[in-house]
Amino acid sequence: MSSESPRRSGRRRGPTATREAIATAARAQFAELGFDRTTVRGIAAAAGVDPALVVHFFGSKDALFREVLALPPEMGEAMAALAEGPREEIGRRLAYLVAAALENPVTQEIVVARIRGATSHPHAAEVVRETVTRDLHRLASALTDDQPDVRAALVGSQVVGIAFARHVARLEPLVSMSLEELAAALAPTFQRYLVEPLA
Amino acid sequence: MSSESPRRSGRRRGPTATREAIATAARAQFAELGFDRTTVRGIAAAAGVDPALVVHFFGSKDALFREVLALPPEMGEAMAALAEGPREEIGRRLAYLVAAALENPVTQEIVVARIRGATSHPHAAEVVRETVTRDLHRLASALTDDQPDVRAALVGSQVVGIAFARHVARLEPLVSMSLEELAAALAPTFQRYLVEPLA
Repeated sequence: MSSESPRRSGRRRGPTATREAIATAARAQFAELGFDRTTVRGIAAAAGVDPALVVHFFGSKDALFREVLALPPEMGEAMAALAEGPREEIGRRLAYLVAAALENPVTQEIVVARIRGATSHPHAAEVVRETVTRDLHRLASALTDDQPDVRAALVGSQVVGIAFARHVARLEPLVSMSLEELAAALAPTFQRYLVEPLA
Repeated sequence: MSSESPRRSGRRRGPTATREAIATAARAQFAELGFDRTTVRGIAAAAGVDPALVVHFFGSKDALFREVLALPPEMGEAMAALAEGPREEIGRRLAYLVAAALENPVTQEIVVARIRGATSHPHAAEVVRETVTRDLHRLASALTDDQPDVRAALVGSQVVGIAFARHVARLEPLVSMSLEELAAALAPTFQRYLVEPLA
């Protein structure tokens, strides 16, 4: 393990690759175990590095958790871009974006880590709220003046619910549904939450 | 605390009231802290009884957890009864049932304890799946032959999602919405998931 120490010579990853290996291992463990049961030692073992290196790169388990919970910036951009497309397609396009994010191993782990974390760590609940009140609210506001805050929250609740049912409770037939089937089932819900009359 | 021991004389609750006090304290703590952080000692302290009495009545923390995760039988009956009402009202009536369950302190704690538990305890994930594949599936099957399993799972995902957003992530404006506003927002979603064409 200590062969990963940056001072040693021989075959080793560079700092960027090592940092990425730690982040990948951390994401998987926070998603699988939640915040409480994940340890710096366990992450280091999975990444094949010395625990001191985890602290060197990320500071603490808490700081590492915050780092791995961030969605890739492309997600926020893709969400914002939806508002520029045809209004009658908005639900379908958001549903594909969400279903694709749940199929992608990296974003799936981020979403699951947020859900598992939200039950035990205030920061995880905070990033969930932030995604809704910032990214989804920006999308809803670009589409309508009628209660964009309620609309963003309703979309967020269905996104969290489908992620929870599929990847935490592992509820069939949701787990076995294809990206296309899932997106088709969710599209009209998002369409109504975003642009149709709410009540 | 040991004044609650059944051997002592003086002012004390009977066994039924003591059992109920323990179950109430357990429900609140599992909902607040999740399975891992809840302790028999903490439950006993909140119920004002000796920890030995918790073990006497429920056997173990695990058995107690299983006990408090059960939804009241009236919930299942109320859900089944929905199928007998007018078909065009089904979404609205289910939405009121769900919103009312989330407003009721006891059922709210059961639902939140299931969600928090599902991230760390296999039994909690199991009871979530069971409610969907048994109670919601029975309702969906009574209404249509078209993919009742998918319909039940989609309803379940939105129920879990709204409970998570409101009571775990504490997402506004969902937290502040009244029972009526929440039910009105969810009704068309449930209506489509249960009886309208899915795609």
